[in-house]
Parts: sequence; structure tokens; C-alpha cells
Amino acid sequence: MLYTDSLNQGIQTSIDLLRSGDARSLARAISTVENRAAGWSELLKALFPHTGKARIIGLTGAPGSGKSTLVDQLAKHYRTNKENQTVGIIAVDPTSPYTGGAILGDRIRMQDHHDDPGIYIRSMATRGWLGGLARATADAATVLDASGRNLVMIETVGVGQDEIDIVRLADVTIVILVPGMGDDVQTIKAGIMEIADIFVINKSDREGAERVEREIRALQSLATRHDQWTPRIVKTVASEGLGIKDLAAAIADYEAYLKTDDLAFKKNVENWQLRLVEMLRDAMLDKARAHIDAGSLEHYAAEIAKHKRDPYSLVEEIVGRAEHR
Amino acid sequence: MLYTDSLNQGIQTSIDLLRSGDARSLARAISTVENRAAGWSELLKALFPHTGKARIIGLTGAPGSGKSTLVDQLAKHYRTNKENQTVGIIAVDPTSPYTGGAILGDRIRMQDHHDDPGIYIRSMATRGWLGGLARATADAATVLDASGRNLVMIETVGVGQDEIDIVRLADVTIVILVPGMGDDVQTIKAGIMEIADIFVINKSDREGAERVEREIRALQSLATRHDQWTPRIVKTVASEGLGIKDLAAAIADYEAYLKTDDLAFKKNVENWQLRLVEMLRDAMLDKARAHIDAGSLEHYAAEIAKHKRDPYSLVEEIVGRAEHR
Repeated sequence: MLYTDSLNQGIQTSIDLLRSGDARSLARAISTVENRAAGWSELLKALFPHTGKARIIGLTGAPGSGKSTLVDQLAKHYRTNKENQTVGIIAVDPTSPYTGGAILGDRIRMQDHHDDPGIYIRSMATRGWLGGLARATADAATVLDASGRNLVMIETVGVGQDEIDIVRLADVTIVILVPGMGDDVQTIKAGIMEIADIFVINKSDREGAERVEREIRALQSLATRHDQWTPRIVKTVASEGLGIKDLAAAIADYEAYLKTDDLAFKKNVENWQLRLVEMLRDAMLDKARAHIDAGSLEHYAAEIAKHKRDPYSLVEEIVGRAEHR
Repeated sequence: MLYTDSLNQGIQTSIDLLRSGDARSLARAISTVENRAAGWSELLKALFPHTGKARIIGLTGAPGSGKSTLVDQLAKHYRTNKENQTVGIIAVDPTSPYTGGAILGDRIRMQDHHDDPGIYIRSMATRGWLGGLARATADAATVLDASGRNLVMIETVGVGQDEIDIVRLADVTIVILVPGMGDDVQTIKAGIMEIADIFVINKSDREGAERVEREIRALQSLATRHDQWTPRIVKTVASEGLGIKDLAAAIADYEAYLKTDDLAFKKNVENWQLRLVEMLRDAMLDKARAHIDAGSLEHYAAEIAKHKRDPYSLVEEIVGRAEHR
């Protein structure tokens, strides 16, 4: 009881500091939820009532699409232009499954915004089985939202299921393409057509920008969205700050659209259904792992590799064990 | 008992057909395990003793890197050149989370190999929460291996955690880069450096191939591998069939290296540890879902979206319920 009290008190202090805008508390809180460190669950529960206020924008694009530059420009736009919004950026990166790791690029970016506490950048490394990256990102966004940041931008590299899961929690999803990235059928996929609320053709001063636009339009005619929104296409040259205002205007348009017919709420409910399942999966895995230690995991793996045991029966057995305790 | 007997008999017949090389049985078996259709678990258990014979090669690269062309050329190489190996290709693609879907590109590719039953191509669509894509791919590879294909190639688009999970199960992992895909720090990531056993610089007739090679070499000096292998760099122009023999030679070298010091076995044990955890997670999720139907999931999601309930306490509650039945 005493322990719980002091834990709760500690959490309340963290939350007060966090909401005062303190960057160190913010960093600590994100680390706590990201790493599932002691008290993570209590922290998220306590933060939850403070959430739901931030605008959440997700951006995804292939490596080399100039995504980080675009996000930085957009952040600067929202900081100035009379908007004066506070911004949190979560940069999700596919890094090593073995070492995790700090990312050079983000360090450089941090320095860029070093003189503006209104911009906070956090990079998320890929974690292995410790629970999905989408989960960690969602939790970090929750912390940023609760901390009172007006705008949370989540940027991710690539167009896989991972990225789709990550940007899904955003209110507005932006897909960044660039001319000349290849004429492969795979460059623009149906999945991407369906998650994008806005397309950005960055580096649009390069040859082929018109063609990319035509391809998007052609694929748009095939895709079906849940709603009636026709994704905007905005051309930018982020490195020179061109098109950033147009992009902000397109974002504002979509946000206004989301306010009609309770669309934002419906989208939110849909997202929470998917997130609940993810959370449930992680929580159940934790339970299952309680019935199998690292040593026996290796032992089992070796038996499977030697073909002495089939993995499918083994998993059934462990799940059965978890059930009967 | 009678039901089990007839199920087992049915599975035995499927396996006999499958191992005779029948393409329709192969397609059916992959669909069964991919969709978790009735009998999937029994099928995998029965197939497991027949696995472990195929060479498994994983290939990943950004969209537009010419991956499919390279895989096709490699498949043709192994079909001819006195090797006469039978090939199974699993093409993993990030598609819609809503519609799933057939992929135009793969249909075109199928036609290409239409006259050669020794090449079987299967594309895997991204599934939502139905269990990971990595799981589905691993199971499909198990079926192809058990069917007696000499070589299984798994190709995937992108460089995210998804792709890392997918190619991880391969004996040999090939990362495909192309010149001119952008000078972003993000183009080549530490994670990729560590999973690649071989690098391919495709479209190497383009300007910048030397630079890509220099960048790989520079990053290689920073990366640490578990083993002593220095990943080869092979230049190809897949669309013209150039460099394919060199690539096959590099693959053979790495396979020979894997035979020293029991490395293949160790790699296998490591992979199985990770796969077991994934399988356990999926199995536990199935269990948890038995305690929450689609209707109440939507109801809960709406309550969370209205901030009437926090999701973290809810998940604890459901997990608790699963425990006490």
C-alpha cells in the first residue's frame, strides 16, 4: 500500500513536470514507456486523461525521399507563421535488430533545432520481440500528446506493414514520393493509396514529377477509400522550403474535413480497435513468456533445429501450460 | 476419433501429392497455412519432418531496386547451368491493410515462367492482425521446403523490421541497392549492414555505382557481425542478366562458409528462438481473442475514443479474464 502510494506520488510529480514542458521529464517518460520500464503501465494510465488534444500527423516515404527535411520544414512552419505551435517529432527508423542504436542523422537534426525548445525530436529504434515498434510509437505519441504539445509528427521510413501500422494512429497521413525512384510497379502500391490522405511529391524540381502525379491520379481511380476524401497532391522542394505552405493548407483542409460527420471520432474508434488487439497480443505474450525462460527457449530451438521436435506442437504445449496455472 | 483418422488420412494424401511436385497441392497447402484454415496446424506438424533440405535465400531492397527482375534471373540461373534446381519464390509485398489483394506485377511474372513447372511463384499479401507476415512467410517457406523444392527464394520490399523479420529465416540474406536512390543518411542503415550476407548493387550501369560501393565499405568498417564473414558486394544489371553468375558464386561462397564451425546450425537455433516467441505471441493472442468478441471490441474502442475508459487498464482486465477460465 505504501509502495503504491509512493509510486502514485512519483507518477504525479512526473506528470506535473511533463506538462510544464520540461524536456528531460519528457525524454524520461518516453523511455519508460518505450522500454516498458518499472511503472510504465501506471504512467500511461495516469497520462491517458490528458490525451486527445494534440493533432497527430503521420508521414511516410521511401529512404531518400527527403522526409526528414520535409518534417523539419513543416515543424518550422508551425512554429512560426503566427501559429506558434509546440511540436513533438517521433522519427521511427528501421535499425538493427541486434544492436538497436543511435542514429547519426537525428543527432544532426537535434542540433538544428537546439535553440528552440518548442520542437522536440525523438527517434525510435526498432525493437525485436519486445513488443512492436507500432506499440512503442503509439505510446510515445501518447506521452507527447499528454505533455501538451500541440502537434505530434510521426515520421517513418518505408511503405511496409510496419509503417502502415505506425502511421495509422495519425489523424492525417502523408505519403512522400519523389520523381525518378524507379518505374517499378511496386513503387506505388494499393496499400499506400489507401492510407494516404495527402501525397507529397518532394524534390519536385526533378524530372518526372508530372509523371508521378499522373501515376497517383491513375491509381486513385482504382482505390476505394472509406470516406469521400480525394487525397490532395502537393509538390514540394523541401530543401528549399518550397511548397511547405501549400502542404500546411492541404493538412488544414483535411483536418476540417475530418470534423464533418464525426469522421475523426469514427477513425479514432477504428484505430483503437486495432490497437487494442495489438496491446492484447503483447500482454498475452508477456504471460506466455512467464512459462518459458531464456534457457529453455534456446534448448527448444536447438531441438527444433535438430528436427527432434516440431515447433507447432511445442507452442500448443506451452500455451496449454499457461492456461492451467 | 474417426474424424481425426480421416483428417490425418487427408493430410497424408495432401503431403504425398505435394511431394510429388503437384503445383495445385502446393498452392492449396500454402493457402491453408497462410489463412490458418482448418487443419493448418496438423498440416505443418506433418510437413515438419520433411523440411530442412531446401536452401533458403532472402532478398530485400527498396521499391524500384529491380528486385523481382534479379530474383527471376537468379531463378533461371539455378534452373539451367547444369544446376537444374527446382525453385520456389515467395514474393512478399506491402499491400493494403483493408483489401489485401492481388498484385499485377506478380501475375505478369507468373506468365514469364509459365512453361517451367520448376519455378513456382507465390505472392504473400500483408495481413492485418491475423498474425504477422513474417509468420505467414515462414510457414509458406516450410511448405515449399517440405514439397522438395531445392531452393526457396524469399523476396521482400523495403528495409523495415517487417523485412528484417522476414529475411531472417533465410540461410543467405541479400540486400539490393541501386545507385542514385538518394544521398540520405537513411538510405543505408546499420540494421541492413548487419543482416546482409551479400550486397548487390543492381542497375550498376547507372552513375554512382562506385559511390554506393564506397558507402557500403565505409559502413562495413563500423558494423559488427556475429561471425567473421565480410559481406561480398556484387554488381549486377539484372535486366540484362549481367552479374548473375557472380552473384550465384557469392551465394555459394557464403553457403560454404556457413558449413564451417556449425555456423548454419547456430544460425538456425537463433532463428528458431525468435520464431518460437512469434508463434507463442500469435497463439496467445488467439486465446485472448476468445475472451473478447468483435462487437465488444468496437464498444471498448468507442469508450476509449470518448475517454471514458483507459485502454491500459482494459487490457489488464481482459488478460486477467483469460487467466481465470
